[in-house]
Amino acid sequence: MNPVVERAATAGAAWRATPAQERARVLADVADALLAHADELWPVADAETHLGEVRLRGEIARTASQFRLFADVLRDGGHVEAVIDHADPRATPPRPDVRRMNHPVGVVAVFSASNFPFAFSVAGGDTVSALAAGCPVVVKAHEGHPRTSDLTAAVVRRALPDPDLLGLVHGFDTGAPLVQHPLVRAVGFTGSEAGGRAIQKLIDERPDPIPFYGELGSVNPVVVLPSADPSTVAAGFAASLTLGVGQFCTNPGLLFVPGEPGEPLGGGRYERAIGAAVAATTGGVMLTTRIRDGYLRGIERLVERAGTGEGVTVLANGASGTGQDAVAPRVFAADLEAFTEGLPELAEECFGPAAIVVKYQDPSDLPAVLRRLPGSLTATIHATDPEEARDLLEVLDRLAGRLIWNGWPTGVAVCWAMHHGGPWPSSTAPAHTSVGAASIRRWLAPVAYQDWPAVLLPQELRDDNPLGVPRRVDGHLHG
Amino acid sequence: MNPVVERAATAGAAWRATPAQERARVLADVADALLAHADELWPVADAETHLGEVRLRGEIARTASQFRLFADVLRDGGHVEAVIDHADPRATPPRPDVRRMNHPVGVVAVFSASNFPFAFSVAGGDTVSALAAGCPVVVKAHEGHPRTSDLTAAVVRRALPDPDLLGLVHGFDTGAPLVQHPLVRAVGFTGSEAGGRAIQKLIDERPDPIPFYGELGSVNPVVVLPSADPSTVAAGFAASLTLGVGQFCTNPGLLFVPGEPGEPLGGGRYERAIGAAVAATTGGVMLTTRIRDGYLRGIERLVERAGTGEGVTVLANGASGTGQDAVAPRVFAADLEAFTEGLPELAEECFGPAAIVVKYQDPSDLPAVLRRLPGSLTATIHATDPEEARDLLEVLDRLAGRLIWNGWPTGVAVCWAMHHGGPWPSSTAPAHTSVGAASIRRWLAPVAYQDWPAVLLPQELRDDNPLGVPRRVDGHLHG
Repeated sequence: MNPVVERAATAGAAWRATPAQERARVLADVADALLAHADELWPVADAETHLGEVRLRGEIARTASQFRLFADVLRDGGHVEAVIDHADPRATPPRPDVRRMNHPVGVVAVFSASNFPFAFSVAGGDTVSALAAGCPVVVKAHEGHPRTSDLTAAVVRRALPDPDLLGLVHGFDTGAPLVQHPLVRAVGFTGSEAGGRAIQKLIDERPDPIPFYGELGSVNPVVVLPSADPSTVAAGFAASLTLGVGQFCTNPGLLFVPGEPGEPLGGGRYERAIGAAVAATTGGVMLTTRIRDGYLRGIERLVERAGTGEGVTVLANGASGTGQDAVAPRVFAADLEAFTEGLPELAEECFGPAAIVVKYQDPSDLPAVLRRLPGSLTATIHATDPEEARDLLEVLDRLAGRLIWNGWPTGVAVCWAMHHGGPWPSSTAPAHTSVGAASIRRWLAPVAYQDWPAVLLPQELRDDNPLGVPRRVDGHLHG
Repeated sequence: MNPVVERAATAGAAWRATPAQERARVLADVADALLAHADELWPVADAETHLGEVRLRGEIARTASQFRLFADVLRDGGHVEAVIDHADPRATPPRPDVRRMNHPVGVVAVFSASNFPFAFSVAGGDTVSALAAGCPVVVKAHEGHPRTSDLTAAVVRRALPDPDLLGLVHGFDTGAPLVQHPLVRAVGFTGSEAGGRAIQKLIDERPDPIPFYGELGSVNPVVVLPSADPSTVAAGFAASLTLGVGQFCTNPGLLFVPGEPGEPLGGGRYERAIGAAVAATTGGVMLTTRIRDGYLRGIERLVERAGTGEGVTVLANGASGTGQDAVAPRVFAADLEAFTEGLPELAEECFGPAAIVVKYQDPSDLPAVLRRLPGSLTATIHATDPEEARDLLEVLDRLAGRLIWNGWPTGVAVCWAMHHGGPWPSSTAPAHTSVGAASIRRWLAPVAYQDWPAVLLPQELRDDNPLGVPRRVDGHLHG
């Protein structure tokens, strides 16, 4: 453990001093290397995750594109957030010359996710954003795909100027020492709420607690309003729910649909269409036996509640796939009252292809129930009349970090505007994102230079702006 | 407690919906109100803090100027960090339209500081940045100046559109319920490391832990290099050390000076000049008896260590002021070896006019010792030859959030470029600042809108940009 972190820190000194343009070139090289090794990478990952060639090749391409986005981010230079306030000797008190920019924080520890063996793992979003920031990375491999982790690390390391910039450790026991290592300056984590709380506790025990960026779960509510186009909802929902055997942080776990007075639970127009669509789906083999067991426990809880006959029922089961850890998609129906009474338990994430379809009679009842949901990465509206959603806006933008219109939450575009975060438990640091250009900010910290000699200033803060980075100068932003 | 938070949350709904330009006008009104009531405010604060008319009038002006800066921030609009990525149907996979901007997080709890009864208290930097962000605030008053807190709150409330936007609670017992209130969405704190750890524990116990922005102490090392101008160091140091009876978070607690081989501890050129300058100073009455007791305990520890005769000695004492809680400035001398052996204890902040002057023989020994110091808000270099400092740069920008050249750390300019933060314990969230324009970011969280109808988008994200805010559109920043 210690030697891996120490070697990363040592390698980090030169990486930190490497100009952003050169770091960009390295990131582009890593993207090329990942694509060049796709033929070797995907079969190893498939053997460990059962995700299949198409998905895994797509994920390798996505992982490479994340490296390319951060190469663009570095070429742009806006990530250093350069700000210059020239001295104002006439101010009271006289104002010194103050210039600020972001610097890399140091070694970043990354706990990789189970469900994206490439895009949120050894070469995933946390790693690439940290490398882009100028930070060396030590990844705690996910136990679900150790060989994929090793192979990916080998591919990435060959494209880095110093292989020690990407450390890799295996095994549950390596996690705590990594979080508490004196040279580790920030932690990225994707996993369970219990895991996230355990890491925060380890951080609190440090002599110098460090920032923690965790993504701990999300139920991703979808609200179908009365004006929605019914022809697209059921099929779209079933497809989003079962994609990747439901093993996405953005899986839609709650669907609110309008119902008619007096119709039976499960017997409404949306419920019948959704039931039919989900019954026609087939599940598959989950990532690990542990994840399958967690899914089955979650389903068990919901089946028990449905068994009480109090406003909750089984709506539909898909077919199970074949294989040892195969599971079937499961959808439940609840009326709004029963769902509300079942909170917070009924809004707990059940990781996998499971959801609750909640039927409401009156859209004006929705804000109160949405307000009681835990924070999510996403919230989605289906409607053809935007005005129907206006009263929900204030609730939605405090419920989730990404609001989707007439779409589905699975699929996260890797772009400048993306936000992948939200209130707890979807993120432990809701001001930050773990996907997209802004995710680099987690691994940067500002330094202000006061009356600092020009010859010692970073290039980004010199008056002549030799790198042409965007800056705010004396209050005015120059793109 | 609960009613105060709930009323703040209720008032927050309208405030959040108030256009930024209008919030700017309100902030400017508060600035005017504070200045208009300066004649009433300062005597109340003086009776509670003994800081005197000149300082307190200056601090009221500073507090008003903080409101004016945030009015400018709101008029600029850059704080929402608007980003637009238009849809790209040709991308693989096709990219939706994604637009992101920051929104207020909700009720902010502020624990005010002892040492700035205006600028870091009820109407201080945390409060104004949160109000600017669109967040209501509930302040836990500092027990050192309760009447000042009440009077300030009354002045500010009259200038707000709804007085409930600024709640105020008193008493130690109100702290924990405030941190754990379900409607509180973030906490700002200025105080001790023990206090900060206690708040983090309370946050960890929440069903939904929230962000914590704490400033917990700073020792603010100053390094005098061989090329420094000796004529300015001693007087400048003594003035900075004793300003406000040393009760500043940026008080210079460690001064590294060059010495000659063989000269006795305390007998070098810098030590003698500093000893004489500090001996000529007079202390004063500290803010509270508790703060005085803490200072005396810190001094006691250092005197004991000096008594052992092992490379640490008393260098000089200033005169005590008059009054019950008056204390004298105290400066100690240590050689580099003894100081290094005494770490980490010798680098603990002793809040008040106390410092250790550490004598080194060889500047190349400095990086190793600076690397062992705790994180600070500031680090300062005195030198006439910038090249002398080059080898320290890499250490300095990980040691402190603000680097000062040939100046002194007390005095924090309130401007766009300021950064007031740093590694633990100077900040619990080193990516964020508690002074200057960027401090608003602590109370904002992004929301991304995916394929969202134009009619429901916030104005800042509409294609026509009616408010003219700075934005990044399809990767290009427009100031």
